[in-house]
Amino acid sequence: MSDLPLAIGIDFGGTSVKSGVLYRGNLIEEAPRIETQEFEEARPLIERIHQTVEELRSKHPRIEAIGVGMPGFVDFPTGMVHNLTNVKGWQRIYLKRELNELANLPVTVENDANCMAYAEWKRGAGRGMRHLVAITLGTGVGGGIVVDNHMVRGANFVAGELGQTSIDYQGPDGAYGNRGSLEDYVGNQQITDLAHAAYAAAGTPREKSECEPAHLSTLARQGDQIALGIWDSVAKMLSTSLMNCCWLLNPEAIIIGGGVAKAGDLLFNPVSYTHLTLPTIYSV
Amino acid sequence: MSDLPLAIGIDFGGTSVKSGVLYRGNLIEEAPRIETQEFEEARPLIERIHQTVEELRSKHPRIEAIGVGMPGFVDFPTGMVHNLTNVKGWQRIYLKRELNELANLPVTVENDANCMAYAEWKRGAGRGMRHLVAITLGTGVGGGIVVDNHMVRGANFVAGELGQTSIDYQGPDGAYGNRGSLEDYVGNQQITDLAHAAYAAAGTPREKSECEPAHLSTLARQGDQIALGIWDSVAKMLSTSLMNCCWLLNPEAIIIGGGVAKAGDLLFNPVSYTHLTLPTIYSV
Repeated sequence: MSDLPLAIGIDFGGTSVKSGVLYRGNLIEEAPRIETQEFEEARPLIERIHQTVEELRSKHPRIEAIGVGMPGFVDFPTGMVHNLTNVKGWQRIYLKRELNELANLPVTVENDANCMAYAEWKRGAGRGMRHLVAITLGTGVGGGIVVDNHMVRGANFVAGELGQTSIDYQGPDGAYGNRGSLEDYVGNQQITDLAHAAYAAAGTPREKSECEPAHLSTLARQGDQIALGIWDSVAKMLSTSLMNCCWLLNPEAIIIGGGVAKAGDLLFNPVSYTHLTLPTIYSV
Repeated sequence: MSDLPLAIGIDFGGTSVKSGVLYRGNLIEEAPRIETQEFEEARPLIERIHQTVEELRSKHPRIEAIGVGMPGFVDFPTGMVHNLTNVKGWQRIYLKRELNELANLPVTVENDANCMAYAEWKRGAGRGMRHLVAITLGTGVGGGIVVDNHMVRGANFVAGELGQTSIDYQGPDGAYGNRGSLEDYVGNQQITDLAHAAYAAAGTPREKSECEPAHLSTLARQGDQIALGIWDSVAKMLSTSLMNCCWLLNPEAIIIGGGVAKAGDLLFNPVSYTHLTLPTIYSV
């Protein structure tokens, strides 16, 4: 393996930073995770990431590049991270430059949902397609868009933010002055709260932990009517944003990933797509 | 002028078909309008359009091509019109082929909102931009999108349909099984109905004709509080869809045209854009 061109991929999450070595898109070695919240500032965490990079390079001397996916707004050409909602100390951090100076390797920094979209397009469910929309459902909701065989980054590299699109013009205020943002309806916490309230209202209260999406899927599969109703509601909300993408972009496929997507059929069967030309839906 | 390369442009509307001769995008002669509703079927209307084409050619022998904008879904490569909501007899009409056979000139057929977006991008408010969203506000709501210097047509050439995007996941059923479509809130008729109901509810009823957008603009400029309130509501609804475009596509500009857009400041001043990177808004 030692002559092959290799790259390091870094998945920077609010909980942990996962790093690994890739050969043509396949993970061939994974490094120990770094706990994101142990770091109060960006610089010490970047140095810790660099330490992991050097450990991987000592085993794989042919590493030629580093790619990093970040959970926030990234200025793609400069690799500057505008800010991270869930990690302290990350405002206007020139991650691409800093990591490049430490490791002396080419570095690409991109929004994590764009990374997911790109990976699914190049090597996954969207392979060979010209037009697709990818969405990640988890704590938050992210997205990435491919149009005419190109990633859509927009005028300031902040395109693809499905989680911030509105599903209700009279909805509650969102994080960025928007109203009724999808993320405020179908995030993990919002689904848990919705279920918790529904069980309480039905006179059959459940612990919060039983209302989390993973457990709520199990309950629904066992025929629990309240859980089934919650998934129907979530599907209705989600389908509104997905259909908006269809009307605007007319993609060949919608690719859905992330924790909430594990609900699978429960979430996607009730999604009624009545668009003129239905895209294929992949849950990955 | 007789040596210059010229083209015929045809704006096919639900009320009339307007044709003219263009030199480098400038209208140099306009033909008499054809009344769309005088024709019950597509074929006689196409023959009538061809007659106008020949009249224009007799004056301008150097005409080299014909472009047609249609108010409906168009299969761009074949120039087939799927259907027209407001004109009888137009289902699966191969307009490009039929007009080409009659006139023996190259013919391009495109959705009219895409034509507007293309024209504004190449020669109007969006000149020189890489990313823009254009929207037409009138009886219905249409749209066209430019991303990375290309028109976005999508997998089946039905992209850009802003009027069909939802602003309320619990809204009324739309024409295509969607719910809460923008077009069902901010079309001419919807604004008129909203105003008519508001005046009645306030105990100061007005005729329907006084509630139409043009007159409602005049009333608002005179300080009429109900009219001002209606424009505020319309702006809130419209801004929801425009912000969704910003979050998904991050355009440099939004270009707004059509009858309702004539309300100008009344409509656009209250539109609160709180996006990270605000696009410029042009009313054309």
